[in-house]
Amino acid sequence: MQKVVLQLLADNNSGVLSRISGLFSRRGYNIESITAGVTADPKYSRITIVTCGDEEIIEQIEKQVAKLEDVRDIKKLPAESSVHRELCLIKVRTAPEDRENMVSLAGIFRGSIIDVAPDSVIIEITGNQSKIDAFIGLLDGHEILELARTGIAGLSRGSENVTYLP
Amino acid sequence: MQKVVLQLLADNNSGVLSRISGLFSRRGYNIESITAGVTADPKYSRITIVTCGDEEIIEQIEKQVAKLEDVRDIKKLPAESSVHRELCLIKVRTAPEDRENMVSLAGIFRGSIIDVAPDSVIIEITGNQSKIDAFIGLLDGHEILELARTGIAGLSRGSENVTYLP
Repeated sequence: MQKVVLQLLADNNSGVLSRISGLFSRRGYNIESITAGVTADPKYSRITIVTCGDEEIIEQIEKQVAKLEDVRDIKKLPAESSVHRELCLIKVRTAPEDRENMVSLAGIFRGSIIDVAPDSVIIEITGNQSKIDAFIGLLDGHEILELARTGIAGLSRGSENVTYLP
Repeated sequence: MQKVVLQLLADNNSGVLSRISGLFSRRGYNIESITAGVTADPKYSRITIVTCGDEEIIEQIEKQVAKLEDVRDIKKLPAESSVHRELCLIKVRTAPEDRENMVSLAGIFRGSIIDVAPDSVIIEITGNQSKIDAFIGLLDGHEILELARTGIAGLSRGSENVTYLP
């Protein structure tokens, strides 16, 4: 079992997300996260999928996703030649006297406090999955009230593997 | 037409994303972005949907999503009482002599340069949609090679509207 990050370029069409997630759920493929957003050219959207499976399954997934309507390109984003980033919002119960402590904890992970209420703060943190998991682990002992993660967005490093479309 | 951010809490089950996006595409509801991630309790996942429509449509969407299998809770996240954040990765063609310029442009928006290649850089930027759109607009004149956005993740401010589950 390996974890794989796939990058797709697709026509910017609301149906494509449904076709992709339908394929994964029908076939029982594991989908860890899927993020999508319009590219600089609003005709296209770029989709990042994190999945896992053995080599054969990953190959099947790549082939079948590539065949879906509106999908123009699919490629792997290997960790060693790509950047993978996720955003996470965490609301933590924090008494006023503990606030300073929470600010410096967030600072170590380059997180920022984006909301302060009398008894809670919201921390915004970005990074790869393991960094975010490490930060959440560090909050052990504090009460996490709510947590929202976006899932991974990724790009290949450098300018060699850029997908240009006709 | 209003833009609405909806927050869902659902059982952490790969089928739920497919059911949601299927509902939107079948009914022709607009889906601007959907992000999903496991919560602090791995039994549940928190999903943020950005959609738009008139009041009647939004009401329909809320009712029908709430009825889907695995969906435990749904609520609106109004801009005035919530935080909405998105992460965006942008690969921009940048000659070495232009790099300093790009670093300071990113700095104004609190973005960071997370990869440098001989003729390109990758910028990571987070914010609400309008901040990210403003930054992309500012890059006009520079060649954007690739761009990946996660879509919005959101939380309500303060600790009053937290959804606890049985």
